Amino acid sequence: MSETRKLRMGMVGGGPGAFIGPVHKMAAELDGKIELVAGAFSHSAERSREAGAGFGIDPARAYASYGEMMEAERKRPDAIDFVAITTPNNLHLPIAVAAMEAGFPVMSDKPATASYEEALELEAAVKKSGLPYGLTHTYAGYGMVREARAFCASGKLGKIRKVQVEYLQGWMTKPIETTGHKQASWRADPAFNGPGGCIGDIGIHAFHLLEYITGLEVTGINATLRSVVEGRRLDDDCNELVRLNNGAGGVISASQVAAGELNEVRIRIYGEKGGIDWRQQDPNKLVVRWLDGPEEIRHAAAGYLSADARGVGRVPPGHPEGYIEAFAVLYREFAEGLLAWRRSEKNPLPTTLPGIAAAVRGMRYIERTIESSRKEGWVEF
Amino acid sequence: MSETRKLRMGMVGGGPGAFIGPVHKMAAELDGKIELVAGAFSHSAERSREAGAGFGIDPARAYASYGEMMEAERKRPDAIDFVAITTPNNLHLPIAVAAMEAGFPVMSDKPATASYEEALELEAAVKKSGLPYGLTHTYAGYGMVREARAFCASGKLGKIRKVQVEYLQGWMTKPIETTGHKQASWRADPAFNGPGGCIGDIGIHAFHLLEYITGLEVTGINATLRSVVEGRRLDDDCNELVRLNNGAGGVISASQVAAGELNEVRIRIYGEKGGIDWRQQDPNKLVVRWLDGPEEIRHAAAGYLSADARGVGRVPPGHPEGYIEAFAVLYREFAEGLLAWRRSEKNPLPTTLPGIAAAVRGMRYIERTIESSRKEGWVEF
Amino acid sequence: MSETRKLRMGMVGGGPGAFIGPVHKMAAELDGKIELVAGAFSHSAERSREAGAGFGIDPARAYASYGEMMEAERKRPDAIDFVAITTPNNLHLPIAVAAMEAGFPVMSDKPATASYEEALELEAAVKKSGLPYGLTHTYAGYGMVREARAFCASGKLGKIRKVQVEYLQGWMTKPIETTGHKQASWRADPAFNGPGGCIGDIGIHAFHLLEYITGLEVTGINATLRSVVEGRRLDDDCNELVRLNNGAGGVISASQVAAGELNEVRIRIYGEKGGIDWRQQDPNKLVVRWLDGPEEIRHAAAGYLSADARGVGRVPPGHPEGYIEAFAVLYREFAEGLLAWRRSEKNPLPTTLPGIAAAVRGMRYIERTIESSRKEGWVEF
Amino acid sequence: MSETRKLRMGMVGGGPGAFIGPVHKMAAELDGKIELVAGAFSHSAERSREAGAGFGIDPARAYASYGEMMEAERKRPDAIDFVAITTPNNLHLPIAVAAMEAGFPVMSDKPATASYEEALELEAAVKKSGLPYGLTHTYAGYGMVREARAFCASGKLGKIRKVQVEYLQGWMTKPIETTGHKQASWRADPAFNGPGGCIGDIGIHAFHLLEYITGLEVTGINATLRSVVEGRRLDDDCNELVRLNNGAGGVISASQVAAGELNEVRIRIYGEKGGIDWRQQDPNKLVVRWLDGPEEIRHAAAGYLSADARGVGRVPPGHPEGYIEAFAVLYREFAEGLLAWRRSEKNPLPTTLPGIAAAVRGMRYIERTIESSRKEGWVEF
Repeated sequence: MSETRKLRMGMVGGGPGAFIGPVHKMAAELDGKIELVAGAFSHSAERSREAGAGFGIDPARAYASYGEMMEAERKRPDAIDFVAITTPNNLHLPIAVAAMEAGFPVMSDKPATASYEEALELEAAVKKSGLPYGLTHTYAGYGMVREARAFCASGKLGKIRKVQVEYLQGWMTKPIETTGHKQASWRADPAFNGPGGCIGDIGIHAFHLLEYITGLEVTGINATLRSVVEGRRLDDDCNELVRLNNGAGGVISASQVAAGELNEVRIRIYGEKGGIDWRQQDPNKLVVRWLDGPEEIRHAAAGYLSADARGVGRVPPGHPEGYIEAFAVLYREFAEGLLAWRRSEKNPLPTTLPGIAAAVRGMRYIERTIESSRKEGWVEF
Repeated sequence: MSETRKLRMGMVGGGPGAFIGPVHKMAAELDGKIELVAGAFSHSAERSREAGAGFGIDPARAYASYGEMMEAERKRPDAIDFVAITTPNNLHLPIAVAAMEAGFPVMSDKPATASYEEALELEAAVKKSGLPYGLTHTYAGYGMVREARAFCASGKLGKIRKVQVEYLQGWMTKPIETTGHKQASWRADPAFNGPGGCIGDIGIHAFHLLEYITGLEVTGINATLRSVVEGRRLDDDCNELVRLNNGAGGVISASQVAAGELNEVRIRIYGEKGGIDWRQQDPNKLVVRWLDGPEEIRHAAAGYLSADARGVGRVPPGHPEGYIEAFAVLYREFAEGLLAWRRSEKNPLPTTLPGIAAAVRGMRYIERTIESSRKEGWVEF
Repeated sequence: MSETRKLRMGMVGGGPGAFIGPVHKMAAELDGKIELVAGAFSHSAERSREAGAGFGIDPARAYASYGEMMEAERKRPDAIDFVAITTPNNLHLPIAVAAMEAGFPVMSDKPATASYEEALELEAAVKKSGLPYGLTHTYAGYGMVREARAFCASGKLGKIRKVQVEYLQGWMTKPIETTGHKQASWRADPAFNGPGGCIGDIGIHAFHLLEYITGLEVTGINATLRSVVEGRRLDDDCNELVRLNNGAGGVISASQVAAGELNEVRIRIYGEKGGIDWRQQDPNKLVVRWLDGPEEIRHAAAGYLSADARGVGRVPPGHPEGYIEAFAVLYREFAEGLLAWRRSEKNPLPTTLPGIAAAVRGMRYIERTIESSRKEGWVEF
Repeated sequence: MSETRKLRMGMVGGGPGAFIGPVHKMAAELDGKIELVAGAFSHSAERSREAGAGFGIDPARAYASYGEMMEAERKRPDAIDFVAITTPNNLHLPIAVAAMEAGFPVMSDKPATASYEEALELEAAVKKSGLPYGLTHTYAGYGMVREARAFCASGKLGKIRKVQVEYLQGWMTKPIETTGHKQASWRADPAFNGPGGCIGDIGIHAFHLLEYITGLEVTGINATLRSVVEGRRLDDDCNELVRLNNGAGGVISASQVAAGELNEVRIRIYGEKGGIDWRQQDPNKLVVRWLDGPEEIRHAAAGYLSADARGVGRVPPGHPEGYIEAFAVLYREFAEGLLAWRRSEKNPLPTTLPGIAAAVRGMRYIERTIESSRKEGWVEF
């Protein structure tokens, strides 16, 4: 293939009423390297066609099932180059496996699977297939998260001692899953979401950011999961203490019943020389507080940033980039990785792109958090 | 044509080193209604081809001049549907006129032309052609600017009494136009930028936001333009008092030598009952301060916003949208307007999309500001 | 006595190099109801005299020991009206007991004593004496903390479900107690500070704010105390999960090794209808986030605040009050309580002033936190 | 006299309902160097006595008029050491003159007099008397304003090019002076307030901050004063362009009808290398934006601040100081200056304390602004 043509994406999920499907499309296409050309957008053939029309794709390529899509696409001369998975969690594994068996690389929404056991299965399948696998931990795509990561790696903070991570939302404050709210309904149902509720939906982002930015690993968890809303079958609130592999300690707090919060993702990391602070709702800044000097605010796209941070931006300093742009960074890196893999490069996927290792860690995190909460105390990771 | 196919855009400008060309492409394509298929990206045929390859378009449609593009495209069965203008200001008029003479609607970067006289010429050409004309006053595309506009129109603030608008940058603090900086070089040269420097580049955004949000008109100007950097041929700083047609008064301040500022666009509007405050660097909020109650922060995408504000967002509250998304709102509205025009609807362009009227007002603003500064006192608008 | 004369305060502690002694003086005197007239400022007679001269008191009333002060003052016709305790923690109990035995009401810095056992002893002494006892949990004196408290009591948030409290400092990031830093030296020494380090110095403030604002009680603790700095004898970092008596849960995080943080006291409380958020470094605001409406910022001294909040301010909205003013609110309430007690009113101390009950709760908190950390799991409060 | 005794203050003004009188008292006394002992608090003898009782002073020293106070106090062995003036503006000059004729140094609220002519008279009287004269431009007492001033003086910003100063309030949005509001009534009446309304009440603070921090002088003014509220006799809104003596330019904006604003005092100063930004409602920070590096936030009381800034604080970093503390800094400096003057030191008043020169500049500013607005154009300062 010519590297100048766009990579062709086939999407599973993203039918009418979905939030994340359209985001995947916009993000995938933003940098001009990928186009959505096919999809199995719904398990209803009609709704899949409807979604396909909305996305402007060839009606013949709006399939009624992902199996049908894999089957049909592999035979086309202009077949899709990879599969994007945007369904509820319970389908992530079977779709990923089917895609890889059909020879398609996979870009999956998080969490990678519905359980830790499934994650191990996925890992085996990825290894066996040798195909690129990416995981859209969106927040990892923000420029200033890259700056934070480079900051930690540079040693400027000294040894890391303490972390505070939070991910607070309020949209499930009421039992909206009982009143037909599509997003809430599957998230509150273990059959679709897996055993973790809030912890699997957003706690996992907090955990991933922690390990992604610090480069450290969580080694112990002491968690309390609660189902605050009466009758809710999965957790909607999580507070936990964590230990890291360098001796540092900290807190992860996640909630979907923090009434009034929108999407408050924040991570603070303290080392021997200072601390850093990033908030997703003001994403183009990284606050650095020094033990012995003025507080600093580093701005996205500025010339003084690390190469990693500068490399992902599209507009000059002071012109905000947001959620879709961060998401698009991951797709851009996946596209680059996919091309590198076709050129048979070793380790083709950029290390900045979350992949199968992050997938397994994340599912392990959910499993361990649930176990800790069940036994009301510390567990090893 | 089928309305489901994407509209085809031909772009003039946006060659290697340009900032705004790639932004136009990303913005135009974000919502899946438009695709860039052709362009005259540079007056160098080779550089145009190079840019075209970067954008992934058919090499045959990377033209060496806009004239060539109009000529060739009008003959194609898959001709472009409209022309996007992203060149330095001096070319805006001739390109727009050529496009309209060739029957192509126009989406133009601001300022609309290089002088007020040219703007009148443009207005005549638009009227004569009957073609849709849109102007990318980016900030008008932000959801919370729409909320601010709806707020003013609703009368919730009572009669408007005072406005404070600022647009502060620092990137031209040093004489960078003398050292090969592409963006700065043409902006500091009257032959390319027209007679206004800072006032034409960013002051015009501040002015547009003022009229766009309040629905009022500036009727008097008392301005001081300065070329702060020694040897600079155009103004790089502007402070001015303004009078509005309802008796309100205020200040517009714009600068490209406010060292340390990135892209500080802020507008505050005070009425009899309260005031509103919007900052582009924190664009997903609108601050409302009431005379008799707590301060309010309204968040993008929230259910309590006006229909105008809610209508433009793509992601849930708390997931930031930024500059590219705001830009894309204007392209989306232009696309909708273009289709409505093809269906022969009356007034096909949405009133929320800046058009030829804003183009003329903006150029008049530059002309009047320069005149006021020259005579060091008030001028009628 | 005439109620118009100022109450006379005798202070123990606050000698040269102390931070909190001078704050007590300024705070006590700010509202014109109290004056410092005597003191045992240091266990060195000379340094006590020196401090007395600095404070501008009669040299004859700068005593060499608190015992001497009690003895001498009780005989004077213009005796002190009460004793303020501002020493290291290990002396709080003996001084309070001596003062009460001499008939003097007591206003004490926190923590009330050096251990929970001592707190019970103190409680018995206070009950036996029948004298007013106040505790300077400074943050309880901020107007917007009063607003937060009134907000919770009013039921506007609905049932409280989740709390996040943090108190982060960085000043003990290095082992400064080994290099002659007066403040750090006694705080890092169990003989002076008691068994809790960070938890006793600042964690207790976080705990107090939690119970003070919500009106709830902590019933369970799951804590990790760490001595992050090598060789430090007391904890300098604390993370803990808590359970409250209404079923709510949450997190308290306190640190003195959060490098770069100054004095970050923040409390967030989430109920069924919304959440509130207060930060000491921006103390004149209370942020209220509603589940179904715009975020609100309530400003100190505004007319729309609760009577409790309005009652404590001194200047109009927009004129910031700070730490000393908050401290002074407690002294003002203590003075009012003291006068009410002299008039033999029942329950003379305002319920808004932390007293002996808070003293006991606080010391229990320290004791329980240490116990939880020792056994690495949940303990009942 | 012994320098250890407190200086005795006699206050004129500050009777029941006054805002600024009690602030003067708290501020004067905060640092333990001054005590209020006498006053002519109202032109009603009864109300003066009432106020005196509230302040806790000897009833014999609550005088019915300032003349009576001067007369009586000069004869006392424990006479007041100076006079503080806190009345409406029209009385500032006669009281100051009377005080100085009686041999009393003067600390006056701003504006210094009711007109520029009076300011010249005052200047002559001060010179003739040789007595210390201080002016309470409160904002000059903030530590971070001192830091800003030191920053400009240090040359770290390079040559200053642009200033933006604003002082926005909303409390006179309605015609409250017609409904018995004491503060508003005299401020809206030229007989009490002088010819400037908003400009004299708060615009003068903005002007003073500008000259105080930059060390530059305003040389030209182009102002628009408006009486926005119908029937109001004095201006309630002011926008103006200014020129400075080094060629810099800028804007001053002041309003008392900016509905919803509380007390928004903000100054931004841009030089060749960066800019600084200070807001009174967040007073313990100074934002520094560099052309070529991360934004900085400097915090009050930090070790890295200039000596001038560190010298004025009372509490450690992170413990906010506010309006009363800033005010108290001026009184402390006045007390120090008064003692230095008694020791016959040359130039006894600290240069950081606004004095008679600032008084004259300020009144000139009001006069020139009114003149500029009258002629609708530039005037020389």
